[in-house]
Amino acid sequence: MSATQASDSPDNLIAPTPSAYAYPLLIKQLLLNSQSLSAHQEITYRGKLRYTFADLRRRIGQLASALETLGVRHGATVAVMDWDSHRYLESYFAIPMMGATLFTVNVRTSPQQIAYALNDSHAALVLVHAEFLPVLEQIQAELKFVRQVVVLADGHPMTPTPLPVAGEYEALVEPASPDFVFPEFDENTRAALFYTTGTTGDPKGVCYSHRQIVLHALTISTSLCSPRDGQRLHREDVYMPITPMFHVLAWGVPYIAVLLGLRIVLPGRYVPEILLELKKTEKVTFSHCVPTILQMLLDAARRDGHDLSGWKIITGGAALPPGLCRAAVEQGIDVFAGYGMSETGPTVALSQFPPGGAPADQDENVRKRCMTGRPLPMVDLRVVDPDMRDVPRDGATPGEIVLRAPFLTQGYHNQPEASEALWRGGYLHTQDVAVMTPDGYVQIVDRIKDVIKTGGEWVSSIEIEGLIGELPDVLECAVIGVKDDKWGERPMALVVPVEGSSLGVEDVREHLQRHVESKRISRYAVPEANRIAFVDGIPKTSVGKIDKKAIRKLTE
Amino acid sequence: MSATQASDSPDNLIAPTPSAYAYPLLIKQLLLNSQSLSAHQEITYRGKLRYTFADLRRRIGQLASALETLGVRHGATVAVMDWDSHRYLESYFAIPMMGATLFTVNVRTSPQQIAYALNDSHAALVLVHAEFLPVLEQIQAELKFVRQVVVLADGHPMTPTPLPVAGEYEALVEPASPDFVFPEFDENTRAALFYTTGTTGDPKGVCYSHRQIVLHALTISTSLCSPRDGQRLHREDVYMPITPMFHVLAWGVPYIAVLLGLRIVLPGRYVPEILLELKKTEKVTFSHCVPTILQMLLDAARRDGHDLSGWKIITGGAALPPGLCRAAVEQGIDVFAGYGMSETGPTVALSQFPPGGAPADQDENVRKRCMTGRPLPMVDLRVVDPDMRDVPRDGATPGEIVLRAPFLTQGYHNQPEASEALWRGGYLHTQDVAVMTPDGYVQIVDRIKDVIKTGGEWVSSIEIEGLIGELPDVLECAVIGVKDDKWGERPMALVVPVEGSSLGVEDVREHLQRHVESKRISRYAVPEANRIAFVDGIPKTSVGKIDKKAIRKLTE
Repeated sequence: MSATQASDSPDNLIAPTPSAYAYPLLIKQLLLNSQSLSAHQEITYRGKLRYTFADLRRRIGQLASALETLGVRHGATVAVMDWDSHRYLESYFAIPMMGATLFTVNVRTSPQQIAYALNDSHAALVLVHAEFLPVLEQIQAELKFVRQVVVLADGHPMTPTPLPVAGEYEALVEPASPDFVFPEFDENTRAALFYTTGTTGDPKGVCYSHRQIVLHALTISTSLCSPRDGQRLHREDVYMPITPMFHVLAWGVPYIAVLLGLRIVLPGRYVPEILLELKKTEKVTFSHCVPTILQMLLDAARRDGHDLSGWKIITGGAALPPGLCRAAVEQGIDVFAGYGMSETGPTVALSQFPPGGAPADQDENVRKRCMTGRPLPMVDLRVVDPDMRDVPRDGATPGEIVLRAPFLTQGYHNQPEASEALWRGGYLHTQDVAVMTPDGYVQIVDRIKDVIKTGGEWVSSIEIEGLIGELPDVLECAVIGVKDDKWGERPMALVVPVEGSSLGVEDVREHLQRHVESKRISRYAVPEANRIAFVDGIPKTSVGKIDKKAIRKLTE
Repeated sequence: MSATQASDSPDNLIAPTPSAYAYPLLIKQLLLNSQSLSAHQEITYRGKLRYTFADLRRRIGQLASALETLGVRHGATVAVMDWDSHRYLESYFAIPMMGATLFTVNVRTSPQQIAYALNDSHAALVLVHAEFLPVLEQIQAELKFVRQVVVLADGHPMTPTPLPVAGEYEALVEPASPDFVFPEFDENTRAALFYTTGTTGDPKGVCYSHRQIVLHALTISTSLCSPRDGQRLHREDVYMPITPMFHVLAWGVPYIAVLLGLRIVLPGRYVPEILLELKKTEKVTFSHCVPTILQMLLDAARRDGHDLSGWKIITGGAALPPGLCRAAVEQGIDVFAGYGMSETGPTVALSQFPPGGAPADQDENVRKRCMTGRPLPMVDLRVVDPDMRDVPRDGATPGEIVLRAPFLTQGYHNQPEASEALWRGGYLHTQDVAVMTPDGYVQIVDRIKDVIKTGGEWVSSIEIEGLIGELPDVLECAVIGVKDDKWGERPMALVVPVEGSSLGVEDVREHLQRHVESKRISRYAVPEANRIAFVDGIPKTSVGKIDKKAIRKLTE
């Protein structure tokens, strides 16, 4: 043996041979497998139009050829305003595969928000369903960059419009060449853009790269497919989105459906009766939606006698209420919650059962389905205190959910300050306050703006409200944080007692103290006697929520 | 509306905000999910030692601390010589997670090949099971870079050795700190290295980056998990490798098992009786092996009355013979073939049934399980003629399998010419000749060195041999390519007739001509009359295979 030092390269990077293909992760690769194996697999629009994956591939080429004729080049942004359709699915592929950016316009926001987003995005071309032409006409004078629109007449005759119409979608696509050669480019190229509709300020643009969309598809499909049975996706599922394709890319599931070669049902505008009819006639087995839509589906199904069994549904966008979950399970739906935000790809957690499968106890079963979820593979999900230290996994200590994952937005479009705030410290800050259970579930308990920071700990105002509300003499209650020189903040409770009650301040404190002793809450969570006030009523917002801003003003 | 040109960036790349985490794909991320969700999941070595995923994580940190003390730094290469063990699993993570390269030494190759590979790799440190110390001692004088060895005594007392022993594995690891901080680095950093044992020339080093290993794990887990039932992997499977961990990273499946948080059984050295005992006592449900091992397992199980039902096994490394497949299925094994090479990650195709599941017809069922496979998601698998044009998907026209995938080796270690040959034209050339069926299956029919290039087409010598062999009067037959000025090459057949046969040249030609008419083979596949020779015998190699090299010399 020799003492010669090994001549390893200091950076240890692999140097590819010149002819090697580096394989950037591009959306076009999601088509590879399904095209070869599922060429005859069917895609249907509302059960009225049907075509195959081979047709999809052809039409993607044709759409790209048509868009190129209209001047769309690498780096352009093309906006789409449509309900869930095969044409939207074609644009999910053709536009980013050209190197352009697919801008999915949220057609449910106000015309002013749409005008803001179209201007902020610099989109020069809009593919617009005829139904939304009036919206564009209304804001036409405000649009700074839109030069052309392509109308998706959707089988109806074209109507006159003052907008600069480049043509009708089918009239442009059908004669175009299917042999568009999709170029190779950097996997960090922007593929998709949309705007979040926050409660304050202008909408913020969120964008994703090809690499991020591909990694989201691979990671989520691994998570969705890997349970033994139940709460899972498999190759013979029939997929119908019920989260709009304009909303965070329908949670990325259309890309997964194409990757796996699933039969796909695109339901157009969501009408509960049509969704249920498609579920029945197209034998849909896999969907995702917000809890409100699930409630509408259950109601309509009960009314019309629809059988919902065999339907797997992920809910997201809001917590899944246990009552709704129980009703869905009783109607045969295998429902479970997912967690994510516009900024996070979106999916970072799913409340799939742990190995061992569904708990036999029905209450526990429902409780687990409604949890925020368990983090997905490749997702570094931490629940941290204000100093970025992980909170104990005790199911009780609250902290903010912060994230690293291969598919989180790298910042807001043209909003450097908001972007830095989102990513401060190198983790994406969700502003969701959660606890982590010993078995790895995350449960959101609050939004960070409603959390009270006191004595270096976080106290959930919603939790304290709930505990005070346990007292039979309490009609309602609001807890806010008030400034405190020593503790930073302290909780203050406004309590509305029931008529004729003799409830006192110490009754409230004693009740909370018992929850301190059972370790449910921190001792910092109990307001001082002078910070519990009995009032006649609590200010509400126009939609009936407790108006904490107004309360804070009152107590200043 | 304005005619202002939109100011899109010409390259359309996403510019991350400075604090955003770029998320390079690193092996350490495969641990994220399983650590949080499967902390109590069990890993066992031979059923004798058991620990949890939490222990695995701790020991990975300890191993890294111990290796750092021994001088291992980013860019170093650490060789491992072991049977399948928990220690090997620890090294699969700790070594690359440090930024060093894990060199998995094929302990079944000759001492000379091991010496060559150790020198070529520049490994300065070898983790070596005591059983392989004699091999290292034998080649000690030839080793140019190895400075230290760590002995894996595996519970036995250490024996004296002239090798420079740094210590015993457990003695070094157990006292070391578990809190090693694994650094961040470029995802293209070299993570693993091993040597292919080609039939000609020196072994060639194949390496994979962190990015490639992560993308292989995500892609293969999606493929393995997505079938509805059968031929699939799920979270409640119990995994035992029966392709050695020194062989192409055990096909990458240990990484998938950790990613999904599976129970893992590491069987040590492969002894059929022990493997079957572990299958029974540990309730193993998922494995992979070469057909020869499968045959051994079936034989041993029949002999000892073992029940093999509920065992899913992927075979690879050689074609799965239908007779063996049928016997395995009859013994309750859900067996199916996989395809790949050392250079390809390795897995690029699996013979999972298409949607619809297992064919009811048993012959068709077995036939499909034995096909080379259907390409996986993200894998651009083409079957091309010599001019790189795709051959028809007719199940008959042969071509070479060429590949693009996110996890193909980017070249051989320090072999620029072989690397360029591997990647000529931007596709990895497998040298496997295959046909593609209309339903997307690939079936290998030949190796390219045994294919005859004639008239711009490829003719499979093995196929022609088989067809000539159909004649009852033919005892055996060999077909080779001979040079031809007009056609490049032409097939030449050597035929050994059965004793007393009156078989003539035109009988052979007429027989082949019928297969031309049924479109089974090309008209170029029929040798001219003067290129069919009746002989007494055919030269064989020492292992009984037709010796085409010797035949070519005879016919020159």
